[in-house]
Amino acid sequence: MKRSAVHLVGRQTARRDLSGSVLYERPMATAFSFRLIANDGAARTGEIATAHGMVRTPTFMPVGTQATVKGVHHDDVRASGADIILGNTYHLMLRPGAERIAALGGLHDFMRWPLPILTDSGGYQVMSLSALRKVTEEGVTFRSHIDGAMVELSPERAIEVQMLLGSDIAMQLDECVSLPSEPDEIERAMQLSLRWAERCKRAFELAPKDRALFGIVQGGDDQKLREASARALVDLGFDGYAIGGLAVGETSEVMLKVVGDTAPTLPSDKPRYLMGVGTPSDLLEAVARGIDTFDCVLPTRNGRHGLAFTRFGPINIKNAHHADDPRPLDPESRCPAARDFSRAYLHHLFKAGEALGGTLLSVVNLYYYQDLMAGTRAAIAAGQFADFAAKTREQWVARRDLPHS
Amino acid sequence: MKRSAVHLVGRQTARRDLSGSVLYERPMATAFSFRLIANDGAARTGEIATAHGMVRTPTFMPVGTQATVKGVHHDDVRASGADIILGNTYHLMLRPGAERIAALGGLHDFMRWPLPILTDSGGYQVMSLSALRKVTEEGVTFRSHIDGAMVELSPERAIEVQMLLGSDIAMQLDECVSLPSEPDEIERAMQLSLRWAERCKRAFELAPKDRALFGIVQGGDDQKLREASARALVDLGFDGYAIGGLAVGETSEVMLKVVGDTAPTLPSDKPRYLMGVGTPSDLLEAVARGIDTFDCVLPTRNGRHGLAFTRFGPINIKNAHHADDPRPLDPESRCPAARDFSRAYLHHLFKAGEALGGTLLSVVNLYYYQDLMAGTRAAIAAGQFADFAAKTREQWVARRDLPHS
Repeated sequence: MKRSAVHLVGRQTARRDLSGSVLYERPMATAFSFRLIANDGAARTGEIATAHGMVRTPTFMPVGTQATVKGVHHDDVRASGADIILGNTYHLMLRPGAERIAALGGLHDFMRWPLPILTDSGGYQVMSLSALRKVTEEGVTFRSHIDGAMVELSPERAIEVQMLLGSDIAMQLDECVSLPSEPDEIERAMQLSLRWAERCKRAFELAPKDRALFGIVQGGDDQKLREASARALVDLGFDGYAIGGLAVGETSEVMLKVVGDTAPTLPSDKPRYLMGVGTPSDLLEAVARGIDTFDCVLPTRNGRHGLAFTRFGPINIKNAHHADDPRPLDPESRCPAARDFSRAYLHHLFKAGEALGGTLLSVVNLYYYQDLMAGTRAAIAAGQFADFAAKTREQWVARRDLPHS
Repeated sequence: MKRSAVHLVGRQTARRDLSGSVLYERPMATAFSFRLIANDGAARTGEIATAHGMVRTPTFMPVGTQATVKGVHHDDVRASGADIILGNTYHLMLRPGAERIAALGGLHDFMRWPLPILTDSGGYQVMSLSALRKVTEEGVTFRSHIDGAMVELSPERAIEVQMLLGSDIAMQLDECVSLPSEPDEIERAMQLSLRWAERCKRAFELAPKDRALFGIVQGGDDQKLREASARALVDLGFDGYAIGGLAVGETSEVMLKVVGDTAPTLPSDKPRYLMGVGTPSDLLEAVARGIDTFDCVLPTRNGRHGLAFTRFGPINIKNAHHADDPRPLDPESRCPAARDFSRAYLHHLFKAGEALGGTLLSVVNLYYYQDLMAGTRAAIAAGQFADFAAKTREQWVARRDLPHS
């Protein structure tokens, strides 16, 4: 097989043969590591090194559920400033299939995203998406929402799937209960998740040495359970620790209380990841409590529904008063879509049902989240995070929008 | 009102005030003109000059129905090589409204497309989209498919709307009948269209001098009627001539016969536009018969439905055999989407219902159409059009696809 060209993509050396097939070399073995750069109160800024590049923390991971950040070209995701994205194991194992993605060179190559990827374990979406499921000690059996087939997901299979996908950061399989739930049920799921954590860690010993595995603290809104979960996970020893089982029905106050109480129980020299959170306000609050990593579908989901996150707070572009508004969303934004198009035009795209509207607002929101994180990192490094957060909130609340011309 | 920046966009000078509002200056008055560069048999290559820039002919105009080429960012439309796009008067007058677009600076600024725009008259879509319509000597009254309101469109209003939109090339209002139709009906519509042509021309006398107006030859599949229509339009005198009333149900053979018989009856020093056509094959055949300008929704509509136009003929990416195919659509394409993504990935996006799939294939197809036109222009200039067309077709038919790795 002749080779015609060599491209550098991220830290990988990619080769194409004459038919255009891409044949990646194995990533250069950069050991996973986390370096804390500065603290500001409980807030932290640092860097996670992976085989596919550096992740600056606090970081926000756009969600690439089905090997695409919904409606957005990967070039735009990169341009927004994302260092890392999240892939959903549940979706990818069902379609197109983990073995298929592996045969096609792994998820990075499949979706042409050369930077780091974190994959969840699939557990959360088994709970939220599959119609029929049975949790046993062994794992979870569920009916695929796509073709109705019965599928088994054990801790070992969850690790295997994530390694087939080639994720830089894999997550343990856990059982996530909604809130509120009975204390017994929360404890049962937490203890089961711990036993699965241990099995995941054992399965992960066969993984390439440049990959990382995070444990997930469970325990609902019960702080004693949270602490027991954290302690046991730290005893097992993971490359990072997630706080799971939040943003599942509880109030923002409960969520932040659990985060504030749990984060200090985690080792300061490992990254801390708050799963599935959240709004820009949630991000600032959680950073203030020591969280480094976030993922959420809000920027793209809200974008598709016409809600733009801006310096001036959220703007619902579908509101009728935008129909004649020649102003862009924010002429000072780093995002071309926020600068270049009038609100009237964006409003029109939504009223007319044109897909470009959802794409443009998704991009606007991805930039907004990344800029919020960049501002957060700089503020923490300068020891001014509280001030940055206060000023950011003040502008949202005051809704000091642009003057009308 | 303070002004903070001056940007050059196309041939316009754009100013923004501090609030970000864009205040375009009037376009510099470049008179509309057409220059024939070379003939090769009946095929021609030339240049249309407009206030918003040059259009190289033969040219293909992507269709921007509702102020957006469906699913595609205008940056990608430009990158594909399009010199000009088409806007649909019917859609735009109903939503967001021609007066509103005018107040927002015209269609170019509204949708941020700085290059030339041709608008149709709205007549064709009144016939095809509105549930209830009544054609009289005065014009056409129809029920909006959006809100059910009754709307009147006369020749004078069609010109007014197109001037409000700011189109570089406006089309006369015509009545387009489907084929087959009774000879009497075809003649009645042709004669009415002629009287409307005259009224459009009169209304157009008030238009800015850098705009152009095209007449539309009607007459169905009756060559005598077509010739009478062409003769009468040429007597009136237009900046260009369209062949309308085709691609409305007749066979490709009938369509090409009408084109082949009608084109020679039009002045050689004016552009000739075949409306609503067509497939890559139709384009080559019509160019061979002396057509300069095309528009069609096929590249984007087929792209959204999973059909990619390539050098190797059309590829239906939804077919199961693409699921494991690591090859790109065409590694030698100028289009990044055709080079960078595997067929397996594109297949996956369609199976998963991800909008990015339709966007990527729309972009692939827009590039393909533009490259076909660029090849056509170069071949005509070199006196090798017949050879170019034959080789292009041969590759489609032979389906000499890439070798599998």
